[in-house]
Parts: sequence; structure tokens; C-alpha cells
Amino acid sequence: MQNHPATRTLRLQHPISLYRGDQLSNITLAYECWGQLNNDKSNAILLLTGLSPGAHAAASQADPEVGWWEQMLGSGKPIDTDNYFVICVNSLGSCKGSTGPASLNPATGRTWRLDFPELALEDIAESAWQVVQSLGINQLACLIGPSMGGMTALALLKQHPDCAQQLISISSASAATPFSIAIRSLQREAIVSDPNWQNGQYTDNRWPVSGMRLARKLGMISYRSAAEWLERFDRQPQDHFPPTMYGMNFAVESYLEAQAQKFIGQFDPVCYVYLSRAMDWFDASDQHAGSVSDMLRQTSLEGALVMGVDTDLLFPLSQQKDIANALQTADIQTELHALDSIQGHDAFLIDMDSFGPPVAQFLA
Amino acid sequence: MQNHPATRTLRLQHPISLYRGDQLSNITLAYECWGQLNNDKSNAILLLTGLSPGAHAAASQADPEVGWWEQMLGSGKPIDTDNYFVICVNSLGSCKGSTGPASLNPATGRTWRLDFPELALEDIAESAWQVVQSLGINQLACLIGPSMGGMTALALLKQHPDCAQQLISISSASAATPFSIAIRSLQREAIVSDPNWQNGQYTDNRWPVSGMRLARKLGMISYRSAAEWLERFDRQPQDHFPPTMYGMNFAVESYLEAQAQKFIGQFDPVCYVYLSRAMDWFDASDQHAGSVSDMLRQTSLEGALVMGVDTDLLFPLSQQKDIANALQTADIQTELHALDSIQGHDAFLIDMDSFGPPVAQFLA
Repeated sequence: MQNHPATRTLRLQHPISLYRGDQLSNITLAYECWGQLNNDKSNAILLLTGLSPGAHAAASQADPEVGWWEQMLGSGKPIDTDNYFVICVNSLGSCKGSTGPASLNPATGRTWRLDFPELALEDIAESAWQVVQSLGINQLACLIGPSMGGMTALALLKQHPDCAQQLISISSASAATPFSIAIRSLQREAIVSDPNWQNGQYTDNRWPVSGMRLARKLGMISYRSAAEWLERFDRQPQDHFPPTMYGMNFAVESYLEAQAQKFIGQFDPVCYVYLSRAMDWFDASDQHAGSVSDMLRQTSLEGALVMGVDTDLLFPLSQQKDIANALQTADIQTELHALDSIQGHDAFLIDMDSFGPPVAQFLA
Repeated sequence: MQNHPATRTLRLQHPISLYRGDQLSNITLAYECWGQLNNDKSNAILLLTGLSPGAHAAASQADPEVGWWEQMLGSGKPIDTDNYFVICVNSLGSCKGSTGPASLNPATGRTWRLDFPELALEDIAESAWQVVQSLGINQLACLIGPSMGGMTALALLKQHPDCAQQLISISSASAATPFSIAIRSLQREAIVSDPNWQNGQYTDNRWPVSGMRLARKLGMISYRSAAEWLERFDRQPQDHFPPTMYGMNFAVESYLEAQAQKFIGQFDPVCYVYLSRAMDWFDASDQHAGSVSDMLRQTSLEGALVMGVDTDLLFPLSQQKDIANALQTADIQTELHALDSIQGHDAFLIDMDSFGPPVAQFLA
């Protein structure tokens, strides 16, 4: 884990009853804040993340390192920290400061790994909500979730219907499609098929590098779009890496290899498997007889912004429309922005010209 | 290899000079024929296959086993063997009767494996053409290629411009997109990352099962469509296979597992890597300064039918339009059928209601 001096931590005083039945105690949560909480604590935004990012969403005086949503968050930016107090929590189960399978199990003194209890997005939501409450905030001005974060936002709304006045849901889903499940299942299978996986007991010297490399490359294939790669790489040859038996002839192959090398070692394999599984399991409507709008009707949400892009394979535009429809059916005033970004699922991290203005306008 | 009693074999008398520079001698080609060649040998069709099928495209009296394109080929079917003499060749480099990396290298007495020379689609085309010529046929009435077979058909036209009067190109490409290269590169990487791969020296007892499983599942993800799986599986649970660490909770996961189990052992891993690589390397325009239409203009083609489907991720509809445009630019009368099948790339194997009639009409 990189050192992020602006990261704060909260140690939960009580165990959490996990959504799938177990209990988890001694939970630490890493989070970071930007902006000033106003006197009546009515200007708070909770930002829930995708699978891999940590709490460091943007730079600040205390931590000038560029964050994962740098262009979206800060003074004068779409999520304007001159007006809002923004909290970003590293997901429970992740490995960037919060408790997860890569943390020490206090009961054994060893790393949790596969002994970590089954984790659901509902648990990530619940623990993030405890961070919000620890700051004395009873209701958020807005709940923002891109990708997995949007699913976690729905999980939070399901469990704490009064948690937020507004919702920004970006390239997300109320439940995964079978296509996305297939992609993620295969990523996880690649990791656990690596002989170094050793039933989760890999060592620093024998890390499941090969499985993580395959998983990350498949991830990138599902995060980007064929259209972007045609424009960016077409059939250009590459000479960054030596040719291999399997290929490494084309620029798209060296791009994937570079992405994989960056990822390996930065994210714990067991954490990856746990969070990825949690996404497959999630169903926002599971306590409302399959109706997402019935779930949303219980909430205090007054308005919502739903965004997505037409080249997204993993969280397709049809799912953004479904979320917007469910919100509207629940009488929540909703804007849907269907963007034609070429970057696929990752567009929300890149295409700020498309994503920035609607967010800024919605929050203004 | 399954026993197909109708399979014939041709042993080439001379070595082939391979497209990437090596020589290959002692070539055996497996092929199967249906229908009767007429007196002037003007009613022959050559069917070139996708990556994995063998020569047994359809049943016959001599071999009643259902073939891989059973509904398309036979008496009274779209490719009507009452009128046409149809030849289907197992690709050079495959493992279903033709010489390939899984065959014995006569020079060493051992299986070729990675000692097999680098293979291109041009070599598959050249060897298939020798089968056609061995039957006394100088020009085909029609050349038909689905998927990789469509690329091989373009390779044949590039090398033997007078080989055919008509072309049916189905869900194919004149050169792979970077997205398709990425998918195939990752499939190959999964295979060669399997510890049982052993630089191609795997044994029957230690087969790279895990790598082939991952490769096949990724193949299926790229061959089908998100829309089909939503309709077919949605989020149904599964109970065919025991749950695993990586998942196996959903019907889509058990479907992929069943498909993978069917494939493992049926296709040789080195052959898979060779054929898959050949698809990435292929560029129909490489001897014509990047112009597919300039290549096609050299041919004797009089007419062409180009088909594809809008849910195909691997050989997208845009590539079918490119092929049709190149044919038209080369003054070849061309029909383009853009179908809205839900089955993705595999639709040509399944959706006969959409694919059958245009083929029947074109050949009539």
C-alpha cells in the first residue's frame, strides 16, 4: 500500500453482522476527506469506489499525489470541494488501508486470506456508512458511485433508506448481467488456477503473478472498447516487450502487458476475488421481490443523476436505463445521460468532457 | 480424433513453401466431400472452416454422425448437395486428420509440437487449394468461409485469383481488429501459462487442462452475446457443478464449464495456439499496399454474398461492411446481409432461419 498522508482511519467499536451470515470485528476503515463540513452538516458527499481504487480520489495540500478521480474532484471541479465536504472510503475487503483478506486476523495473528468471511457489497455499504456517522453526519447531500461504487450505493440505500438526498449513479447496475458475471468468474478462475495461488496461501516470493496478469488483461478488455482500440492501436506492431510464444506482436498486446505489470503487486489476489464475487452476488432488489423501484420508493432520495456510455460492455447502457426507470417509477426526479464516449466502461475515469459537466450541473 | 469414415486424405507430393518462410513436407490433408462433381467440374464448392471444426461438416450415408454445419449442408439444404459438389478440408495446422503440430514429425519420429514451422492462413489456403486441384477442379463455383474460414478464403483469393467464381464470406474479416487480437492473445497466454504446457511438451497425463479451460471459456464469451445470455440465463443459479472458490454460483458459469469440458481433449493446445496466432497475423491486403479492393480486383470473382450479425464482438458487422465495400469497389456484384441474430459470432452455427435463406438464394 502506498503511503497517503491524508488518509484517516476509523476503528469500528462493534462487530458488523455481515450480509451473508458471519460476524466481523476489529474493523479498520481507511478514508479521505476534502472540503469543509458546514455547520448543519448538510453538505456531505460520500463517494463509493470501483473494485480497485483506494480512498485517495484526489490530491490535496496534505497529499499532493494525483488521485484516481483527480479531474472530477476538487476546488472548482465538478464535485466542487469549495461547496461540498467529500468523503471517500476504501472498501471493506479491499487492501488499501481498510480491513480485508490481506489484513491480519487478530484471532490468529496471521493474514486473513481465505479465512476472511464471505463479503457482500451490503457490508461495504454498511461500513462506509459507519464512517459517515462517525463524522456526525446523519444524511448525505449526495451519494456518488461509479461502477461497483454505484452498486454499493444502492446497497446503502437499501439498508439505510434515509442516508442521502441525492444519488449520482455512474456506469453501474442494480445486479450484474450474466455476461459480466462470466467475465469476472473467468478472472477469478485465472487467479485461483495459478499454481502459486496455493489455496490463498501464496507468499511474497511466490505470488500468483500469472493469474493476476490474465485477470487484469481480461479486465482491461472488458473496461475499454473495440472502437477505442481500433482508433488507438489498429494493427500497429509493438517493440516494447520481446515476442512470446503466445504473441506480443501488436501494440494492443504490449498495452495490455504494461497495464498488467502496473497492477500486479498493487492489488491483493484474495481481495480481488472477494470483491469481484461480491459484485456478482449483489442484487439491489433482493429484499423487495425483485423490484428495484420498490426498494428506491422507501428512500428519502429527492433527485438522481444516472450516467453511462454506449460502448460499455460490463455495465451496458441498458442497465443505466433500468436504474433511471426504477428511480422514475419510484417518483424520484431523475436525469439520465447516455453518453457516446469511446472508452467503454472506463470512460468515467477518462472522458471528463462528457462526464464532468452533467455532474457539475447536477450538484450546483 | 473421432473416426469419420467418410474422411478422405491427400498426401501432398511436394513440400509447401510456407508464407512465413519455412518449408513443410510430408503433408497429409483430411477432407470430406458431398454431392456429385459434374462432367465439366463446374459445380464445386470449397468450404473453409473456423478455428476448431474438422472436415465433417455434415452427415452422409458413409458417416451419419451430425456435422458442424449440418443444417446448412446436404440434400435440399441451403448448400444443396443435389446441385453442388462440396469439399470441406480440415485446416493444415489443425488436429483433425490434417498435418499439424500434433502430428508426427517424420524427421524426428516425435510429435511436432513447437518444432512445427510458423503457420499462416495463406498456408491453410494453399494446402486446401491443392486438395481442390487433386480432384481435377480448376475453378470453384463458390468459395465459402465462415469466421477464420472467411479469412482463409481471402488468403486463397490473394494467392490464386482465378480460384473461384463466387464467394460467400460469413462473420469474417480481412484482418483482425485489435479487440479480437487482445481476446485471442489472452487465450493463448492462458494456455502457455499453464504449468503443464511445458514449452509444448505436455504429456497425456499432464495436459494443460487449466489453460485450455480458461481459453475455451474466454472463447465462448467472445463467440456469444450479452443479449443471448440475458435471455437464456439471466441470474439463474446453477447446481450442476459444486461451488468453487472463484464462483460457480450462476447458470452462465456452469454453461461455460460444460462447454470447456467438452472442448478439453478434443483440440490440441499447440494446434490451438498456431491457428489462433495465424488469425491475428493475417492481412488480406498485405501484398496490395493495404487495399483489399485492389487485391479483389485481381480475382475472377463475379459475385459475392457477405453476411454478419450485429451482436458479433469478434468479427463485428463493421468488418462485414468493409469486406462488402471492398468487393463492390472491385466491381464484384455483392449482397450484404446484416442480420440481427442474438447469438453473436456463433450465430452462423445456430440461427439457420437467418443464415439459411440468403445462402440458398445466392447459390440457386
